[in-house]
Amino acid sequence: MTNGTNLPLEQGASRIVISVDAMGGDHGPAAVVAGLATSAERDSTLHFILHGDEAVLAPLLDRRPVLNGRCELRHAPRVVTMQDKPSQVMRHGEGTSMWSCIESVKRGEATVAVSCGNTGALMAVSMIRLRKLPGVNRPAIACLWPSRNPGGFNVMLDVGADIKADADDLLQYAAMGASYARNGMNLARPRVGLLNVGTEEHKGRAELKEAHDRMIAGAAEAGSYEFVGFVEGGDIPSDRVDVIVTDGFTGNIALKTGEGTAKLVSDFLKETFNSSWISKLGALLALRSLRALQRRIDPRRVNGGVFLGLNGTVVKSHGGADATGVAAAVNLASQLARSGFLDRLAARVASAGRAGQDAPDGTNRDQTE
Amino acid sequence: MTNGTNLPLEQGASRIVISVDAMGGDHGPAAVVAGLATSAERDSTLHFILHGDEAVLAPLLDRRPVLNGRCELRHAPRVVTMQDKPSQVMRHGEGTSMWSCIESVKRGEATVAVSCGNTGALMAVSMIRLRKLPGVNRPAIACLWPSRNPGGFNVMLDVGADIKADADDLLQYAAMGASYARNGMNLARPRVGLLNVGTEEHKGRAELKEAHDRMIAGAAEAGSYEFVGFVEGGDIPSDRVDVIVTDGFTGNIALKTGEGTAKLVSDFLKETFNSSWISKLGALLALRSLRALQRRIDPRRVNGGVFLGLNGTVVKSHGGADATGVAAAVNLASQLARSGFLDRLAARVASAGRAGQDAPDGTNRDQTE
Repeated sequence: MTNGTNLPLEQGASRIVISVDAMGGDHGPAAVVAGLATSAERDSTLHFILHGDEAVLAPLLDRRPVLNGRCELRHAPRVVTMQDKPSQVMRHGEGTSMWSCIESVKRGEATVAVSCGNTGALMAVSMIRLRKLPGVNRPAIACLWPSRNPGGFNVMLDVGADIKADADDLLQYAAMGASYARNGMNLARPRVGLLNVGTEEHKGRAELKEAHDRMIAGAAEAGSYEFVGFVEGGDIPSDRVDVIVTDGFTGNIALKTGEGTAKLVSDFLKETFNSSWISKLGALLALRSLRALQRRIDPRRVNGGVFLGLNGTVVKSHGGADATGVAAAVNLASQLARSGFLDRLAARVASAGRAGQDAPDGTNRDQTE
Repeated sequence: MTNGTNLPLEQGASRIVISVDAMGGDHGPAAVVAGLATSAERDSTLHFILHGDEAVLAPLLDRRPVLNGRCELRHAPRVVTMQDKPSQVMRHGEGTSMWSCIESVKRGEATVAVSCGNTGALMAVSMIRLRKLPGVNRPAIACLWPSRNPGGFNVMLDVGADIKADADDLLQYAAMGASYARNGMNLARPRVGLLNVGTEEHKGRAELKEAHDRMIAGAAEAGSYEFVGFVEGGDIPSDRVDVIVTDGFTGNIALKTGEGTAKLVSDFLKETFNSSWISKLGALLALRSLRALQRRIDPRRVNGGVFLGLNGTVVKSHGGADATGVAAAVNLASQLARSGFLDRLAARVASAGRAGQDAPDGTNRDQTE
């Protein structure tokens, strides 16, 4: 077993500690440990607290020298499965690796938690242990979406923390999403759009119209974002918006529909290339470029829904994440930890009327906000 | 000007008359007339009543000999634009090509109407002129979605007729969608799924849980479909379901998200092939196969949302439809006209308790229902 939390800081870079749930993902703890090793190789300031079955994890860690002295193991005998109901886990979840993982953030030992487990259970445990930020009614899950923007991604929230949202919630999602875009994507003044069935002002549900009017009336100014109005499903990957705001029911359906469509087109493309020897040859010649495309739309690269609105940052990795996916989630977690994202977000939510608290560089408010 | 409505029937096939709105699409009446010519060449039983500005349309028709004697022109001086509000068109729409187009179906001159115009206005005019089928609370728009099923498509509804739906509406959408799948896609016993944020029974909104329980309790049996339970966004293009039922807000977002994602992947693919001379060569070799792929996921091929639940069938073609898209919408319209779809659907809705009225072949109920 390795223990790294008492090691001295490396020179010139501040140490980041991430709490990781080793269990509950489809590929098991070996994929998680492999992902941590990949991340650790890339970034020497990263340290981990790994939660799960010691008998399983210790041998896996022993085979990864790069994690030696940088990964503390915390034994947790129980595992939350994908079938467990959130309400059950919330009441009887102590002793699970997921619960233990969130506890490390609650106790301040780690800045961000990462888990590949059951999303509903993870949100339930995060809610009950970390509690909501003062002023937040409904926390949200934000995801990154491949887009035509220069940075390559847009943010969408909520993608499934709750199944409904009123106008107040939508306004809070906008402020939190904009803060996330500033700190996670270095956008000084993110453009926010409200997801609707049309861009005309008279369209859509009552709570959308109310949120629309309040954003124009001052909420956008207070939240230091630019409001671009209603956007449609086709605009989610576009370059006319950075942050797409919607309720968790619609956002979850849109996210899974987008993933499913990309998978369908990609499968059809493979069939296409296998349909004749001449197209096989063509694919062979274009292989390098096709691999670049695959990386560009690879869901593993954008792996990590972020829970916003809690007293602690939690990154939810895809249940099916392999080592590459886990490394991407850890990369996102470390970026958020390094930016001091949570403090900025909390300040933003606590004083929605004042602007500027969550600028990436606090000394540079005029330029970035 | 040509006049075909009084021509004698051709031998061996019954004559189908389709009412077509020539105006209001992005590509203008020339694309519509070109699409009709394509359809007329393929199917000699097709006849049209074309609505729009005579001065514009007559010269276009004169250049298409195949439409000679098969296309009656009805002058309508006004056009509904994409910016017009549905409520305005509903009150003051007389004299527009859209209104005139729906009138032909109302008067029984044509079996199905086709328009590329403003969706909201088309639904409003269809509602006020054709009226809802007895027993229908909310009409719905059904679309076809490229899928892994043998037929190549799934049906989804509602994709935007209304922005909400209660449990009664969802049950009616299921019955109407199943009827459409039987008659438009020749599926004897369609599999119906309810779109939700998870497949577990405890998930989702109250109206979804109620509809779920009532489908199991007997509505599926009465509607002669198989209920597969909740499905997620990723299942929309899958082969585990034929008909996806959802409210019009969620359905519209999912539809546009799917289209936008397919477009994004396709644009990225083009950039990929243009990124080096060797991948250009690869693309050249695979050209035939890539064109086959393009046809497979071409939104023009699945062009045509169908309005269900009215006393008349209306096919809404994409506003951006070119000649190929218009021909696809006309093809769908003629298939629905030929199957006697509307009578079967009306019987199904009127007596939701009895099964078998909308079997594709009325003499063959046991086998098909």
